[in-house]
Amino acid sequence: MAAQQAAADIDFATEFYGALPLHQSQTRPRLPRAQISSFSARDGETVLFRARVQTSRAQGNKMVFLNLRQRSDSVQALVTVTPEKVSKQMVKWTAGLADESIVLVQGVVRKSPEPIKSASVQDVEVHVSQVHLVSGIDGRLPFTLEDASRADTDEVIYDADGKPQQFNRVLLDTRLNNRVVDLRTPTNQAVFKLQSAIGDLFRQFLNSSGFIEIHSPKLQGAATESGASVFKVSYFKGNAFLAQSPQLAKQMAIAADFERVYEIGPVFRAEDSNTHRHLTEFMGLDLEMTIEEHYHEVMELLDSLFLSIFRGLREKYSNEIAIVGKQFPADEFKWREGPEGTLKLTFRQAIDILVEDGVPRETLDDINTENEKRLGRLVKAKYDTDYFIIDKFPMELRPFYTMPDPEDPTLSNSYDFFMRGEEILSGAQRIHDPALLAEKMRSKGVDPESMKGYLDAFRMGCSPHGGGGIGLERVLMLFLKLNNIRRASMFPRDPKRLDP
Amino acid sequence: MAAQQAAADIDFATEFYGALPLHQSQTRPRLPRAQISSFSARDGETVLFRARVQTSRAQGNKMVFLNLRQRSDSVQALVTVTPEKVSKQMVKWTAGLADESIVLVQGVVRKSPEPIKSASVQDVEVHVSQVHLVSGIDGRLPFTLEDASRADTDEVIYDADGKPQQFNRVLLDTRLNNRVVDLRTPTNQAVFKLQSAIGDLFRQFLNSSGFIEIHSPKLQGAATESGASVFKVSYFKGNAFLAQSPQLAKQMAIAADFERVYEIGPVFRAEDSNTHRHLTEFMGLDLEMTIEEHYHEVMELLDSLFLSIFRGLREKYSNEIAIVGKQFPADEFKWREGPEGTLKLTFRQAIDILVEDGVPRETLDDINTENEKRLGRLVKAKYDTDYFIIDKFPMELRPFYTMPDPEDPTLSNSYDFFMRGEEILSGAQRIHDPALLAEKMRSKGVDPESMKGYLDAFRMGCSPHGGGGIGLERVLMLFLKLNNIRRASMFPRDPKRLDP
Repeated sequence: MAAQQAAADIDFATEFYGALPLHQSQTRPRLPRAQISSFSARDGETVLFRARVQTSRAQGNKMVFLNLRQRSDSVQALVTVTPEKVSKQMVKWTAGLADESIVLVQGVVRKSPEPIKSASVQDVEVHVSQVHLVSGIDGRLPFTLEDASRADTDEVIYDADGKPQQFNRVLLDTRLNNRVVDLRTPTNQAVFKLQSAIGDLFRQFLNSSGFIEIHSPKLQGAATESGASVFKVSYFKGNAFLAQSPQLAKQMAIAADFERVYEIGPVFRAEDSNTHRHLTEFMGLDLEMTIEEHYHEVMELLDSLFLSIFRGLREKYSNEIAIVGKQFPADEFKWREGPEGTLKLTFRQAIDILVEDGVPRETLDDINTENEKRLGRLVKAKYDTDYFIIDKFPMELRPFYTMPDPEDPTLSNSYDFFMRGEEILSGAQRIHDPALLAEKMRSKGVDPESMKGYLDAFRMGCSPHGGGGIGLERVLMLFLKLNNIRRASMFPRDPKRLDP
Repeated sequence: MAAQQAAADIDFATEFYGALPLHQSQTRPRLPRAQISSFSARDGETVLFRARVQTSRAQGNKMVFLNLRQRSDSVQALVTVTPEKVSKQMVKWTAGLADESIVLVQGVVRKSPEPIKSASVQDVEVHVSQVHLVSGIDGRLPFTLEDASRADTDEVIYDADGKPQQFNRVLLDTRLNNRVVDLRTPTNQAVFKLQSAIGDLFRQFLNSSGFIEIHSPKLQGAATESGASVFKVSYFKGNAFLAQSPQLAKQMAIAADFERVYEIGPVFRAEDSNTHRHLTEFMGLDLEMTIEEHYHEVMELLDSLFLSIFRGLREKYSNEIAIVGKQFPADEFKWREGPEGTLKLTFRQAIDILVEDGVPRETLDDINTENEKRLGRLVKAKYDTDYFIIDKFPMELRPFYTMPDPEDPTLSNSYDFFMRGEEILSGAQRIHDPALLAEKMRSKGVDPESMKGYLDAFRMGCSPHGGGGIGLERVLMLFLKLNNIRRASMFPRDPKRLDP
């Protein structure tokens, strides 16, 4: 690459790094590397750091302004011709650096005369003495990071003449086709830090509540649960199927006396639906626990778990939430705290709210996506919360393993949790009695013989239990209002997308 | 079930639980439930707890001894005919309880006159006033928990007449076919608590070292890495393949500037090998990080990670390790602490050790499984450690994306980690230069066009980086010396096993 060749001409501290351009671990001088996020507190210090060149802009032939980026942080750097230190050649070479090149920079941190609006660190800049190319660009960027960082709206905005304005908007498909570049935006850096945080908060809460983490196989011998919508795998001379949830395995872990278990793992759904909220592979945060007296023990633990996640995000990640909010403006996510607690409606109460708003009762055997969103808006208006629970779903809407209500067999001991009017958790007490389970299987058209291993687990004695499954990407999408679940998945998979 | 019917006859506190036999969450008196593990400190207290009946043994018709179990804990309980409190009928019913039934028991904790060897809590017993059946057994247990808890040796032991002794040994296949019952042994309860602990220690260390957790798709558009040994999936009208590692995705996360990432997820290997250490699906603990100066930064972080896991297990889980040790006797796992640190050999030094021991040098282009174990024994004898690192593997033994050594291109910047003479981690600096990567692909017979998305990630600029992948089940198996990896997987998958 021409740029890498040019690097060899630069007056750089090669005594430290030898033949640096190849970066094959030639030497190890152990020079400390700095983080841009620390620069505000380091006025006057010399720093050495690796960063992306977001932009380079020459001013005459004696000065270059660089915008240098690490993850969500950026700083302005100046390279100025200085006798004995910075040559004209070096300034020229620096001005020619391709956007998104990676450089190793040495310089002194100095207070900036005025706030630098183009950088996240606004009160200081770096006066550069050395620049070295770590990795160049081979080809053309699919889009600039500036364009990719603009607010991504689905609305077309027209100018005074009625012409659609050019914002250099980067379409979602273009982003996903070039995901490695797209993921470099400060927004995406923050989104995936928050995704990691949600998983961590989930685990912390459950570890401190007596749960252990389990790992169940994704390769299954039979197409379980519904028989439909599973991916078939060629398995040596036969076939296997990809698990559409860890439901059966985590229930077997309960029958095996682990008492409280959770799993974080991929879930596969072979549904050919290309909506804003469906993926063919997503991360399930699943848990299952024994019940001592009442399934509300499970529902309440799940509620405490969500509150712990929401609080953790607000307390420890407000910076990341603010970064995302610049590109995806959203009302702050609201939930109820204090003695009144989380809003819990029964399915019947939820239906009544919709009917009161004008939805014909006869269309409400189930709550479809549209009505779910409508209910979310009505609840928000009435109770000022983006988070609530619906309890006691009709039995006919739930899978065969759901425990019926003891007093009204048309209802079930089951619940869904909602964020901003979309379901993010589904759960229930499960049937632990093998005779009742077999009966419910037959009533839903499942042959008990086809799930013998699962049924046998309950024949060997099993405690009453319940649980739930959370979609990680949905929680992330809805908390941040990203509007499309693909934005909450690093490398999303849908019926049309298997790459990158 | 007859036993459940009988339960209704028992003089039990039905005022609290109503129609308890169905356990459909009828009432919620919020009575505190006790853990057997706390009983030693509760002499004289009345306790209410749910437990398995491991055994029930009548003594005459007025007394029954129960061995009651929760996870790895057990306690002896006595049911004795007592006027106005415990009837003859109740004693008879209790004596008839099937092994592995689940019961709700109320009683008073009393100091035991002598240590109870058959229970894990030996200094107290429970004098029972009420027993209620929570879940019965429907059918015959495949084996007793006592038999399943015996030391599981592969040796056949002969008596004085040369006849193989009957130990009621439960064979591994029988265990795995009835895994839900097998998992209830105190040993397995401890094994999977330790599995959860390893994952947790892995995460804790990396979270505090600036890593974030990522989730990469297991469904891939192309058969990556080697082209062979991947499972094919029917994906709508086309095909997909199951990822044989998150290698490509985690490297793309580095090219996307996440700097330090890890993933805990399933890894799929379509190799038809039925050894003690291969599974077709296992849990990969993977990490990838940028390098500032030298790939030993990565190797040293991985070393610190392992030391942190070993120390965490020894400090916080000695009880679980001891429980497993009763069924799987093993020398305590040893590693080097202090200033000398972990033993690091180069590949050449490792070969020399084997040659010195009599292995012909010409057979040592690679170190096969047998020689790996031999090396482990030699290292243990010489350095008193079960854990060591081999660095600088020959380039020809490593995948195309491995960075060559800067001074000797026949070597590479790569390493393996070993526990008790078996490889548990493989890692390296990776090639971040797209031209060199394409060249190495071609030299290993991989068409660069077939991995365009991956190559493109490096064309858009990528920092030097390295990482490694750890097999969770192998670490667990070798730390505890379980001798077969299937014992370290809750529901193992191999070429012949897809159930349960």
